[in-house]
Amino acid sequence: MKEINVGLIGFGTVGSGVVKLLQENKDLISDKLGAKLILKKIADIDTTTDRGVYIEEGVLISDANELLADPEISIIIELIGGYEPAKSFVLKAIANGKHIVTANKALLALHGDEIFTAALNGGVEILFEAAVGGGIPVLAAIKGNMAANRFTTVLGILNGTCNYILTKMADERADFDDVLKAAQELGYAEADPTFDIEGTDTAHKLALLLALAFGSKINFSRIYTEGITSIAAIDMDFARQLGYKIKLLAIGKCDGEKIEARVHPTMLPLNYPLADVKGAFNAIRLTGDFVGPVMFYGSGAGMKPTASAVVGDVMDIARNIVAGVGNRVAPLGFIKDSAKSLPIMGIGEIRSRYYMRFGVTDQPGVLARIAGALGEHNISIKSMIQPTKTGNAVPIVIITHEAAEKDVIAALEKIDAFDMVLEKSNRIRIEDNLE
Amino acid sequence: MKEINVGLIGFGTVGSGVVKLLQENKDLISDKLGAKLILKKIADIDTTTDRGVYIEEGVLISDANELLADPEISIIIELIGGYEPAKSFVLKAIANGKHIVTANKALLALHGDEIFTAALNGGVEILFEAAVGGGIPVLAAIKGNMAANRFTTVLGILNGTCNYILTKMADERADFDDVLKAAQELGYAEADPTFDIEGTDTAHKLALLLALAFGSKINFSRIYTEGITSIAAIDMDFARQLGYKIKLLAIGKCDGEKIEARVHPTMLPLNYPLADVKGAFNAIRLTGDFVGPVMFYGSGAGMKPTASAVVGDVMDIARNIVAGVGNRVAPLGFIKDSAKSLPIMGIGEIRSRYYMRFGVTDQPGVLARIAGALGEHNISIKSMIQPTKTGNAVPIVIITHEAAEKDVIAALEKIDAFDMVLEKSNRIRIEDNLE
Repeated sequence: MKEINVGLIGFGTVGSGVVKLLQENKDLISDKLGAKLILKKIADIDTTTDRGVYIEEGVLISDANELLADPEISIIIELIGGYEPAKSFVLKAIANGKHIVTANKALLALHGDEIFTAALNGGVEILFEAAVGGGIPVLAAIKGNMAANRFTTVLGILNGTCNYILTKMADERADFDDVLKAAQELGYAEADPTFDIEGTDTAHKLALLLALAFGSKINFSRIYTEGITSIAAIDMDFARQLGYKIKLLAIGKCDGEKIEARVHPTMLPLNYPLADVKGAFNAIRLTGDFVGPVMFYGSGAGMKPTASAVVGDVMDIARNIVAGVGNRVAPLGFIKDSAKSLPIMGIGEIRSRYYMRFGVTDQPGVLARIAGALGEHNISIKSMIQPTKTGNAVPIVIITHEAAEKDVIAALEKIDAFDMVLEKSNRIRIEDNLE
Repeated sequence: MKEINVGLIGFGTVGSGVVKLLQENKDLISDKLGAKLILKKIADIDTTTDRGVYIEEGVLISDANELLADPEISIIIELIGGYEPAKSFVLKAIANGKHIVTANKALLALHGDEIFTAALNGGVEILFEAAVGGGIPVLAAIKGNMAANRFTTVLGILNGTCNYILTKMADERADFDDVLKAAQELGYAEADPTFDIEGTDTAHKLALLLALAFGSKINFSRIYTEGITSIAAIDMDFARQLGYKIKLLAIGKCDGEKIEARVHPTMLPLNYPLADVKGAFNAIRLTGDFVGPVMFYGSGAGMKPTASAVVGDVMDIARNIVAGVGNRVAPLGFIKDSAKSLPIMGIGEIRSRYYMRFGVTDQPGVLARIAGALGEHNISIKSMIQPTKTGNAVPIVIITHEAAEKDVIAALEKIDAFDMVLEKSNRIRIEDNLE
């Protein structure tokens, strides 16, 4: 039986999962491929820690360059993450004619254009299913069986740390800081959680989804990104009362001319399947012009689910090697040069419905002034709640009809300057008008 | 640009959707393929009805054999459904060296072995994504990115008609017969709904899912199948009260040695995403040893979603034609002859938790006798409800701990023979122990 040699760079959690999977399901894999996958070398700067998986003497080396130069290796798995040296390794592997499988969303969101072009020109493949949604095979579905669709909407819960925190906050009426601390102690959040809680990781993943779904070049820098740090327990209470869940949602919309791309806390109606995605799970909902709405749900991270996506990609490339073809599907699903460069709208240009919370003094006429300021900016109110006083500031919550973000920005700036407003307002966008 | 000629047999609802999709998204498709898909001929015995789509003069013909004999056509789409003449057409197309795309679950569930063997021997491909879950790309995911997994469980809500009826019954506390009649008037159920409501259509789809997920040969005849006709409004009431939804569920489980395969009404806890699948939507939940649980959700039928899956398959084959390869992935995902023949367990051998409803006379000692009979057959009771009397028979509802089906059959037979039992008991299996 034909043997296909694989090299792995990065022997951390996911790397160990990949080794485990290649060992445990070896026979299953060769029954499907008609070829054997041989993990010939693993490169990691740490060659001593016991990862709990057996590897043969001589397989683990410290110098990735040795592996990149090995002429017997056809597929390189890059799992070190971050920008450098990952980028250099990937480009060198491509230059050496090796196919790439990576889970590195940060690298591809920022340098994908350069890397994909190098892969296309070099006649090698690059697959990255594990970069978005962990084990959920959503990228393969967009490039594969759903390829005939013109997609109009992509929505995603793509960061397990944020979803875990928001789920806990909602279930336990707890404050953000306390839940984050607990999550860190349990290992559900990094010691430095910035990339997760500020929405950056979600935006990296959205950048890749947009490119695949809308056939446009990757444009990470234009994605509006807002994290979950400003969500208060009181917002969770109001959300519950109003029939919503708050999720950190990646939103992509495309009308064929321009793209709306944003990551921010979002209120979702309770009866939406996305509202029901709990804890560390991820979900992606796409709407295509023919397939309609389709949702994918599963483990968005973790050693074993991520390894499933990585090895699935390796098998896809291996099938091409067995069949003797290359570049059967381009990295973003479109043939070379057919990807468009659609502009991404600024956040001010979008329209949404809004939840707004104001902390005001308890005196007559306050609501009239707020309503007046909103009206002056073409924002109509759909409903309002003014609960009993808590603390110094009385909260007023307003749900608006669809309004322009630029009008909302202007109105809130004006309202926040009123004397009777004691706290800076909070506003959360609402997504409840899905096709 | 290279042109790939496609022939369509069956110009009904889905066939019209395929024509529409090939026309509307023509440019998108060629941007992805680097080739043009040309619908060269459509065969249908009805060549006069207006399907609301434009086709050029001479494309629509009445004789499928003409299309099957056309040497310029590389891919045949079979959308006539049923066994014959579909089977003869498909086998003839394979004999003529043409690739096949079909949505015909009934044909493949019964004659898949013969057809797949013919395709493998003939060096042509056969894809059938649209046969299971309409537009949901679940088969491609099992054969594709999730291929490295050993699957242990497959659960599916696979029949839109049944799910629509059960959703209506639950929401409107209506009886089966009334909802079926309304569904027929609205076109959501066929004039002869037998295949749907008796579970046969769901079992056809399960047969295909099992073969793909567990790598075993198709074995439709061994799938235990029970439809939804015995579900009463009162069962819906109790389900609600107990925190369950009743769904027609396709269940496949595999421990590597044997397969459990059954289709029947099933109680699912309200907090399961599957319990929340409404109306004509479909969902499939798979558990793999590495990916963990993954769920796919979308439109399980209809002109446009089904067309999405059909054209997605056509594009997959077209990519192989462009690349100059064939049989890159075998019909069931395993290379020739590597599929096993795992035995499917008889229904008596399975274990489950059960909901049991008895209609008894209102007299002391009834519950004791029922409980005694259950105990004699090793069935322990988890909870019991005895509501106030309705009609002549007093309902008693029992939820059991896990028990063997063969014991349940024996116990219910015994209990149903008691004098004080006025109605035949109803039992619904419960699935609430998902990994």
